[in-house]
Amino acid sequence: MELELQLAVEQLHARYAHALDAGRLEEWPEFFTEEGRYRIATAENEERGLPLPVLYAEGRAMLRDRVASLRHANIYEPQRYRHLASSFLVQRVDDRVVSSTSSFVVIRVMQDGATMVFASGRYLDRIVVADMKYEERVVVCDSRRFDTLLAIPL
Amino acid sequence: MELELQLAVEQLHARYAHALDAGRLEEWPEFFTEEGRYRIATAENEERGLPLPVLYAEGRAMLRDRVASLRHANIYEPQRYRHLASSFLVQRVDDRVVSSTSSFVVIRVMQDGATMVFASGRYLDRIVVADMKYEERVVVCDSRRFDTLLAIPL
Amino acid sequence: MELELQLAVEQLHARYAHALDAGRLEEWPEFFTEEGRYRIATAENEERGLPLPVLYAEGRAMLRDRVASLRHANIYEPQRYRHLASSFLVQRVDDRVVSSTSSFVVIRVMQDGATMVFASGRYLDRIVVADMKYEERVVVCDSRRFDTLLAIPL
Repeated sequence: MELELQLAVEQLHARYAHALDAGRLEEWPEFFTEEGRYRIATAENEERGLPLPVLYAEGRAMLRDRVASLRHANIYEPQRYRHLASSFLVQRVDDRVVSSTSSFVVIRVMQDGATMVFASGRYLDRIVVADMKYEERVVVCDSRRFDTLLAIPL
Repeated sequence: MELELQLAVEQLHARYAHALDAGRLEEWPEFFTEEGRYRIATAENEERGLPLPVLYAEGRAMLRDRVASLRHANIYEPQRYRHLASSFLVQRVDDRVVSSTSSFVVIRVMQDGATMVFASGRYLDRIVVADMKYEERVVVCDSRRFDTLLAIPL
Repeated sequence: MELELQLAVEQLHARYAHALDAGRLEEWPEFFTEEGRYRIATAENEERGLPLPVLYAEGRAMLRDRVASLRHANIYEPQRYRHLASSFLVQRVDDRVVSSTSSFVVIRVMQDGATMVFASGRYLDRIVVADMKYEERVVVCDSRRFDTLLAIPL
């Protein structure tokens, strides 16, 4: 039923956002299928058809490596993130997969309380219905400038 | 069924936001009925009952003119916008029309990456159920100050 | 039915946000049960298990007192707030109560138009299903610094 599918997709996105915002990075790879792909790109490069992702990872093993290196590099000041998502458009691709387009904004709160819009953009997802995991999550950021450390996954 | 109506309204809002954020301005008039009204007002004027919209357009022809003039005036630096919407309250008005109240925030990303909250406020909509188009969309902005160019529709 | 419950919870949150953003503070206590609890805490204190809320009120009478003192103290410049909420995870606790976790961001618009992210965080709610009111609403803010006046409820 389509309403239930829409809700299931929105809840996948919600659990993903809460895991990241709570700093539970080790859960992050579990939101993807075993061979799941994760890519961060800029809107500018996407429109120009330039295959230059800011970040690319394929398969849970690579995602776990990414988490490990983030944990290892964690010398930065303790900051917090808050994801907001909106405008979910879910469509059946076939019996196995749905696509989802949504908008996001991530807020960053520094230790001294300074708060800023850290990133905004679109999620373009392919989700396997049977286990509600991302087969592909493409994060298309509106800005072409990035905090090079990109402290957490988006 | 009410759940389906709620979802249909939220999806109308979602398609509208994605069209604007992707810069597909020519699609914007198509979200309205042939005689559809679009109005931007400030919360302050609304509360005082002052009939002084920041912008008013009635009918798709006027909306198309607005798009044409925006395209023509487009000398500004390429900026991007991201709409987030939330808190959708949908109510049946009659067999033909539903009303919808929701909150929005629009983020603006400049070419150098500077990101700011561009606008926030409420959408007050009247939507024709049969073809899921806006008969009226009133954008009540929280701020009374505006970027006079108002580069894109809200 | 779970879809209807999810929608009912989201609409409770939506009505709450619209009431606050419209400055209808007197409605605020009515969103809680007679003995309902409201607490603002920081994420840092929550993680450390420190029982030091920024604000605590129990029962509608205390919530009404809080509104009265806000109304009384209202010498501040007229500012506006805009709540955005996202990522709603609703779970049945028992026949009587559901829990809800969600994310929020509050935007503040000053009289001169200056706009900022005022607060962000999570709502952790216990909601009585029969009358759709908060038995408990815990606001866990990402920042540990607060505008000491905290002009409005979050």
